[in-house]
Amino acid sequence: MIIVMEPGANEDQIQKVAKKLESLDFKIVFNRGEIMTVLAAIGDKRLIDPASLASMDGVREVKLIQEPFKLSGRESKSEDTVIDLGNGVKIGGKNSPVVMAGPCSVEKEIDGLLEVAYAAKDSGAQVLRGGAFKPRTSPYDFQGMEEIGLKYLAEAREKTGLLIATEVMDTPDIDLISEYADILQVGTRNMHNYKLLKALGKTNKPVILKRGLASSIREFLLAAEYIMYGGNPNVILCERGVKGLDSHYTRNILDLAAIPVIKKYSHLPVIVDPSHATGRRYLIEPMSKAALASGAHGLMIEVHHDPDNAYSDGAQSLNPAQFKSLMKQIKALEGILTN
Amino acid sequence: MIIVMEPGANEDQIQKVAKKLESLDFKIVFNRGEIMTVLAAIGDKRLIDPASLASMDGVREVKLIQEPFKLSGRESKSEDTVIDLGNGVKIGGKNSPVVMAGPCSVEKEIDGLLEVAYAAKDSGAQVLRGGAFKPRTSPYDFQGMEEIGLKYLAEAREKTGLLIATEVMDTPDIDLISEYADILQVGTRNMHNYKLLKALGKTNKPVILKRGLASSIREFLLAAEYIMYGGNPNVILCERGVKGLDSHYTRNILDLAAIPVIKKYSHLPVIVDPSHATGRRYLIEPMSKAALASGAHGLMIEVHHDPDNAYSDGAQSLNPAQFKSLMKQIKALEGILTN
Amino acid sequence: MIIVMEPGANEDQIQKVAKKLESLDFKIVFNRGEIMTVLAAIGDKRLIDPASLASMDGVREVKLIQEPFKLSGRESKSEDTVIDLGNGVKIGGKNSPVVMAGPCSVEKEIDGLLEVAYAAKDSGAQVLRGGAFKPRTSPYDFQGMEEIGLKYLAEAREKTGLLIATEVMDTPDIDLISEYADILQVGTRNMHNYKLLKALGKTNKPVILKRGLASSIREFLLAAEYIMYGGNPNVILCERGVKGLDSHYTRNILDLAAIPVIKKYSHLPVIVDPSHATGRRYLIEPMSKAALASGAHGLMIEVHHDPDNAYSDGAQSLNPAQFKSLMKQIKALEGILTN
Amino acid sequence: MIIVMEPGANEDQIQKVAKKLESLDFKIVFNRGEIMTVLAAIGDKRLIDPASLASMDGVREVKLIQEPFKLSGRESKSEDTVIDLGNGVKIGGKNSPVVMAGPCSVEKEIDGLLEVAYAAKDSGAQVLRGGAFKPRTSPYDFQGMEEIGLKYLAEAREKTGLLIATEVMDTPDIDLISEYADILQVGTRNMHNYKLLKALGKTNKPVILKRGLASSIREFLLAAEYIMYGGNPNVILCERGVKGLDSHYTRNILDLAAIPVIKKYSHLPVIVDPSHATGRRYLIEPMSKAALASGAHGLMIEVHHDPDNAYSDGAQSLNPAQFKSLMKQIKALEGILTN
Repeated sequence: MIIVMEPGANEDQIQKVAKKLESLDFKIVFNRGEIMTVLAAIGDKRLIDPASLASMDGVREVKLIQEPFKLSGRESKSEDTVIDLGNGVKIGGKNSPVVMAGPCSVEKEIDGLLEVAYAAKDSGAQVLRGGAFKPRTSPYDFQGMEEIGLKYLAEAREKTGLLIATEVMDTPDIDLISEYADILQVGTRNMHNYKLLKALGKTNKPVILKRGLASSIREFLLAAEYIMYGGNPNVILCERGVKGLDSHYTRNILDLAAIPVIKKYSHLPVIVDPSHATGRRYLIEPMSKAALASGAHGLMIEVHHDPDNAYSDGAQSLNPAQFKSLMKQIKALEGILTN
Repeated sequence: MIIVMEPGANEDQIQKVAKKLESLDFKIVFNRGEIMTVLAAIGDKRLIDPASLASMDGVREVKLIQEPFKLSGRESKSEDTVIDLGNGVKIGGKNSPVVMAGPCSVEKEIDGLLEVAYAAKDSGAQVLRGGAFKPRTSPYDFQGMEEIGLKYLAEAREKTGLLIATEVMDTPDIDLISEYADILQVGTRNMHNYKLLKALGKTNKPVILKRGLASSIREFLLAAEYIMYGGNPNVILCERGVKGLDSHYTRNILDLAAIPVIKKYSHLPVIVDPSHATGRRYLIEPMSKAALASGAHGLMIEVHHDPDNAYSDGAQSLNPAQFKSLMKQIKALEGILTN
Repeated sequence: MIIVMEPGANEDQIQKVAKKLESLDFKIVFNRGEIMTVLAAIGDKRLIDPASLASMDGVREVKLIQEPFKLSGRESKSEDTVIDLGNGVKIGGKNSPVVMAGPCSVEKEIDGLLEVAYAAKDSGAQVLRGGAFKPRTSPYDFQGMEEIGLKYLAEAREKTGLLIATEVMDTPDIDLISEYADILQVGTRNMHNYKLLKALGKTNKPVILKRGLASSIREFLLAAEYIMYGGNPNVILCERGVKGLDSHYTRNILDLAAIPVIKKYSHLPVIVDPSHATGRRYLIEPMSKAALASGAHGLMIEVHHDPDNAYSDGAQSLNPAQFKSLMKQIKALEGILTN
Repeated sequence: MIIVMEPGANEDQIQKVAKKLESLDFKIVFNRGEIMTVLAAIGDKRLIDPASLASMDGVREVKLIQEPFKLSGRESKSEDTVIDLGNGVKIGGKNSPVVMAGPCSVEKEIDGLLEVAYAAKDSGAQVLRGGAFKPRTSPYDFQGMEEIGLKYLAEAREKTGLLIATEVMDTPDIDLISEYADILQVGTRNMHNYKLLKALGKTNKPVILKRGLASSIREFLLAAEYIMYGGNPNVILCERGVKGLDSHYTRNILDLAAIPVIKKYSHLPVIVDPSHATGRRYLIEPMSKAALASGAHGLMIEVHHDPDNAYSDGAQSLNPAQFKSLMKQIKALEGILTN
């Protein structure tokens, strides 16, 4: 940690900061410049909130040097994490990209879901995704089929052999959802729901953690850290676009550079959801290809049997035929990228 | 609702959209321009997700015309909502600004909290704020004193007569916290935690709803809508800064124009938290004054008995003497603004 | 254009708006809903600033329906624009991606530039890019070699047969730079420099227009419109990242979805500059591949003979060997993408 | 400057960085931690581009410690700069706020301008602002009256005694505009137009420098630095809102915390333009008051004699009566704030 003192800081203020750090078992090196003094605090025997130093008199700025994520960071584990999702499907490392497809929401009739599930399976997807508990911006929007939706997903799994991924929104729902799902998902709006993250740390299910609506990569990895710190190492990160300055032509701004950045700083698998990131059907194909080209370990794609009549997110859903065509292109690209 | 068709949309596509809208009890007016056709759908007998229209073939864009918030909007209730917080303290409308002060976190020893509470009371604050359950970006940061913290707050209330406001992070905690607190708070990281918002709609406590880290004003009012839709009309909105492009000199960007915007579109009281918005002690005073000048119904300010040794957010906390001095200036300004 | 009146707007206000629009040769269709009236103004005989309507009493909002770009938009020209850059190099449409490589700045000694130019040529690049006039955030940073730099570039062209692209910052410099360069470039900081854009509309050189630091896609296409409106149809758009909420791990956020969006709305060629977008060398390769996968017509990549000692942007420059390796991967990818 | 080495950096890489810094006359202090080494480079005999260090092998990050602005920063001049605008009007320091009012654009007929000028004078404004050269996002929007507009402004000055402020967009126009104007203005779209900033450094007119559309405070002060470095110390900074995540209810997000931040780091006067920041007439009054409460040295407000028919920015312009009413409130507030 680097503590930059104000140009006018006096010796008393400098010593007070140094003493506080020494009391926390840091070793202090003084860099006394002509204009200002900089203290380097070495060692992290104890974690300290930088803001508590920043508030001291005479301190201009406190700069962290080590990344604050321990378990999710490469520094603690250099080899890639590979997660066994079940059915022999593995994600991470050098494994082929895993494709998760399905409707935004599970709807009233199971037939549509089954149609999508069969199509997903036939086209080569490994996981069926679908929301039974839905976080919606407005209370007047469809809120999900809840347990009935979970039962439908389970039935689709039985019929197709696909794995099932679905979202958890609240700690009391974890047990119920875990009975049905193979993979739990934390939505973008709950990335900062730390109670939920902690509780998921106590389960043994793989967790797809979606990047927060406007979260930095550091906050994203710290959210993963919450789950891992709780005891569950099986976290799959999912880039799904962040809020940007221009939402006229795309819903969010898909941050594909985050893929190689995350792969540098973390050992966890990272996938991309081009559907929520862009919100436009015609962008799914180019952004899926770009996601793989940037190194993603998988894709999560919205597919609906009848997008025009979807309960939610129809505008960004592919129909089964479009998904099939996309999968062909993905397969072609995959061959090149892994060679 | 306005549905803009693509320049190349054919008659069949246009009619399909029109029929879908008519089936939902909308009346359709066709505007056929030389370049494109625009449909105006009048009436909102049923709410419809604009995205489900946007996904239909030939549709370029769907534009909402009415604001989507019903209960929190001015259109449903033109007079200002005034909330009785207890002890005769009223917030909203033409009432004097309510000041809520206290430490970011309730800490191990009660003495500091009591010191702040007495100072807050003496300086004219009406509410003591303090976190017992803490949402922290890192799992390694202090997570709060939980029930002990609530007991301390209750003791401070008994000794000073201040009202107590504290944060709820998870649905299972609502009952416990409600036993102690006069006002419940939803933190910025949980503004999109819809399960929590719904559950708070079932309580009868006033709720301070903090604006999400990067939420639009519309999303903010829709989050309030969730609480109101559940049956609890006592929502206090709190502007606390949003993420911006530059976090070098301030933690967030305080959006003070949101105050008059919210007062135009909503009848709910709206307060400002300059401490979290700026993250810098020297900015609390000017931003508190600016908040009142922009029309805020109240302020929430972090005060700590010993900011240098605060468990969290010391850098942005005032000490009791600084708070007293701020309150003097606020009082002077108030006289002018209410005349 | 759609004019949404306030719920409380009276008939007089509605008629005043209608009259103003009729006086501008718009045809008006009234949509009178239960809550508010919406006017659709059809025809664009004359362009009108929506803000002048928005200011009228009783108007809630004015929504544009047609995109405001005429010359750069697909609506005016459906086939892709292909620009002949010289030497038989064509950019846009189905042509192979054009690669532009070279140092951020032309430096004091010509040798380094020549080394890069030969390496670029050998690896298959078609254009040598290099700044002679440099826009730098600080006046204390290196400001460019100016005319000497242009002479160096011309010499490199003569020796390698590469085309030359370089930046113009100010209208009085256009003539001088045009004497040397094959392609003129407008930097991100000048995307809104309308006098410069207009003046470039009077030249007959191809212009690379970089997206503004935080510009929307609409503003970007309107900047192209300025050049085209002046008489120069040869505009190459360049996505180079926009400011985002997180600049910790990348300099900007590379908006690759902008590529297919621009290709949908405009017929102009669009390229990607991963060097400035990310600011990190290790991100150039994955982002170059992702750019091509998303459909870019070309790439602009910083290559320096000795990045550690570059006058500017060394951190994001490849050395010649790294560039050669990148080009191999690009070629492999290209084969798949064009099939 | 702090250079953080990668955890895996070897001694050779560390020494190479140290040698490069020593060759630039920096003194090096080594902080060798258990995980990584950090070098502190003391002294700034020469300025160095941090990016050139960041590109060296083994370097993780380079952190600047001193602010990069020399002339505009408080460190070089602790007392507030007060600029004499002419006619005895002084801006900065403890002087009363200066109010600049007038239409966005000077229009075809001079009568409207004169009406506004007389009203501005009567209400207590000191400066008439009006654009003769207009930077517009679209080439189809009104581009300004150019020299005729300047003549009109000069006539309004003669008739009212107000000072004249108007925008310069291009270096070749500076001489012409300087003949007429008392104060030159750099618009938000040209804040990064360094050639223009440099050229303004050679004039002796006060310059209002508007903050860039999305510029950080640091970039803003560095733009001021360009003008000052050229020899002109009379720079007035103008906060006018920056791009934010939500432009639904306001055009930009007004960053009022920037006022006390700038006053801490710079000695230059700083004013606020609530008209462009918000783009909505009803927000001008609360934001003007909030701007003064946050410590602004002045205000720039759009006033038009007939906003409904303004050539530009009517939606955010006050009419003369509204401006008069605003000025009364400003005067009342001023009394409190300066006491």
